Amino acid sequence: MTSDKEKNTIFPIDGIMISSVEAEIRKKNELDLSLVSISEGSTVSGVFTTSKTRSPVIDISEKNILSYTPKYLIINSGNANAGLGKIGKKDVNEYCEYLSKRTNTGINEICPFSTGVIGERISVKNIKDKIPFLIDALDKNSWENFSKSIMTTDTFNKIVSKKINISNTDIFITGVAKGSGMIMPNMATMLSFVATNLNINKEDLDKILTNINKNTYNAISVDGDMSTNDSSILIATGKSNLNYIDCDNKDKDIFITSLQNIYKELSMKIVKDGEGATKIISIHIKKAKSNEYAKEIGMSIANSPLVKTAFFAEDPNWGRILAAIGNSKVDDKKLENFDLFIGDQLILKDGEISNDYDESKAKSIMMQDNVEIIVNINNGSEEFTVLTTDLSHKYIEINASYRS
Amino acid sequence: MTSDKEKNTIFPIDGIMISSVEAEIRKKNELDLSLVSISEGSTVSGVFTTSKTRSPVIDISEKNILSYTPKYLIINSGNANAGLGKIGKKDVNEYCEYLSKRTNTGINEICPFSTGVIGERISVKNIKDKIPFLIDALDKNSWENFSKSIMTTDTFNKIVSKKINISNTDIFITGVAKGSGMIMPNMATMLSFVATNLNINKEDLDKILTNINKNTYNAISVDGDMSTNDSSILIATGKSNLNYIDCDNKDKDIFITSLQNIYKELSMKIVKDGEGATKIISIHIKKAKSNEYAKEIGMSIANSPLVKTAFFAEDPNWGRILAAIGNSKVDDKKLENFDLFIGDQLILKDGEISNDYDESKAKSIMMQDNVEIIVNINNGSEEFTVLTTDLSHKYIEINASYRS
Repeated sequence: MTSDKEKNTIFPIDGIMISSVEAEIRKKNELDLSLVSISEGSTVSGVFTTSKTRSPVIDISEKNILSYTPKYLIINSGNANAGLGKIGKKDVNEYCEYLSKRTNTGINEICPFSTGVIGERISVKNIKDKIPFLIDALDKNSWENFSKSIMTTDTFNKIVSKKINISNTDIFITGVAKGSGMIMPNMATMLSFVATNLNINKEDLDKILTNINKNTYNAISVDGDMSTNDSSILIATGKSNLNYIDCDNKDKDIFITSLQNIYKELSMKIVKDGEGATKIISIHIKKAKSNEYAKEIGMSIANSPLVKTAFFAEDPNWGRILAAIGNSKVDDKKLENFDLFIGDQLILKDGEISNDYDESKAKSIMMQDNVEIIVNINNGSEEFTVLTTDLSHKYIEINASYRS
Repeated sequence: MTSDKEKNTIFPIDGIMISSVEAEIRKKNELDLSLVSISEGSTVSGVFTTSKTRSPVIDISEKNILSYTPKYLIINSGNANAGLGKIGKKDVNEYCEYLSKRTNTGINEICPFSTGVIGERISVKNIKDKIPFLIDALDKNSWENFSKSIMTTDTFNKIVSKKINISNTDIFITGVAKGSGMIMPNMATMLSFVATNLNINKEDLDKILTNINKNTYNAISVDGDMSTNDSSILIATGKSNLNYIDCDNKDKDIFITSLQNIYKELSMKIVKDGEGATKIISIHIKKAKSNEYAKEIGMSIANSPLVKTAFFAEDPNWGRILAAIGNSKVDDKKLENFDLFIGDQLILKDGEISNDYDESKAKSIMMQDNVEIIVNINNGSEEFTVLTTDLSHKYIEINASYRS
């Protein structure tokens, strides 16, 4: 049993030190720059945006995580350093080189991350000025400030921490994330940093991260856009001396499930913070040919502006869900024999309207903060769940004013 | 020269007779049901929604246009007759059979079209009750009422008519369309009926319609959804006795250009009526590898809610355009060397920010009712233009209340 106190504890991860500072990259009096140091012997994995106009910081971090082992991560909010051509590359290289010299670390062991406005030059001077302070201030208990320093349009900071015991060893997992707008299939405007003190080799760590991302960050959708800077980083410091590869299957399962729950909770926080969202919609696509097939249909529903406005209006206008299913890019010519539920209200059974369907009951289900849609495609046994939000007036307000 | 009077004239098309009536399919005191009769010897082509949950009316009309020559079109608004399984098919068959008997026409020569709410049964009785009146009321001067009878969330009726002279023969083209919300790539919630008195064989007519659709209806995007009922129908009655196949290339060009202009004007009216739109955005993708490649990038920009809200805010936040370009599903790993213009303001040249870029000028361009974005991809010589609108508060209002 986890005590209430432990539930809210942010556990430090042995091997990880963090510091955060106000660098005035965009706004004053807000933390916007963090440094993370990673101890010798750690392994680090990353999953990155597939945007074709991604920031040069992503190119650098992806390369360094692939071929080297990062010793420092430097993360800023307020400016994405994207859309700037050669000058953007020059700017990030300049402060990475400075950090490399000040810490006596190879330039390939430094990974930069940025989030914020696109198309404006980042202040290299502000970052360099704060690097000496950040190095001095490194501390193992700074996860909370780290989570605050990466916020942009987020309305709350996102942090999750867990302690588990396997093979008589305390294993800790702590993670932070940022994201609210532009959340969709491939992780848009999202940063996530998760660490554990378990020892995991690079090959296993890569597999674990890729699998978990697929069912968590890549399964959330707020508005259908993908950003230039999305990154999801997983670090295993190995400081516990317990090795993942030596664990029995039961212990492996406990660890993977706990890690997956960290990612699920962070995903849920991001969806809850969806710009202007008034409710969370869980779309369960079941009895489908394949996992990918179910995901395509789920995403088609989740990204339909007409479905999202109907949910905002709390109107069980299921015709829009049907139209979105029809709009999906699956390989069938027709989709006719599916079942459709809103909550526990069966609307369509094998494509026919159910005699028991009660629209007033469906309406009261839609008035809740969490609404479930279930679609049984009835052509297989695979499933996929997508989380999304409604589309409200507030979304327009926030996004019509983000820059100013 | 076309006289001012001729500009606003709706020319009847010899061989086409139309009647419209209030059938109370959804609302009272509004035209919502039309009958179109097509004379012997005409050819008819159709392009239809690729939705996987399309209405049975589309299945019937597509089959009949492919294998027979329609004599009657029966078109209703207010109810899409979609999402109803077997009962929806039974309903449409029932009133088509009745029309077939009353007009002594083969059942395969009747094409039904529907638009409106999904998931509610259509009143077969109301339609059948009005069929005798519609048959009696057929008239060649009823195009205007026809255009009104197909409206749903449209705020104005859409009709365009032109007269041209080729080979000393008067050729007329008249068309109506409906559509405002859900307009996107493959023609969502859109009906279009265009007719000419030129004689065109079925093979040529099919080619002409497919080509024109590709660059007009399939190049407009309002909100990224596609509907269950979209149809675009082109009729050539041949009553002029002039045969398209006998025209010289110059005359063929004049006809095709005039027909294309009819479709462009109808498209523009649909985009202008985009739900809650405050401005029209023309996205020109140029110097691209291929036409399809340019379209993919243009659609990625046009369907980005973040780009659309920035246009509503009149904020030249070009980073969102860059992110949407990066988000497109083209086969390059990187897109870096493109030029980006808002109106005549060059922002990026070969991927680098232009020294001459003046944000205040870009802002004043964005405050206009019609805004152009130009992207030179710089990897070929093909181009594609996409029309779209901004995303406003009004969009949420309209779509949160459409059913009630």
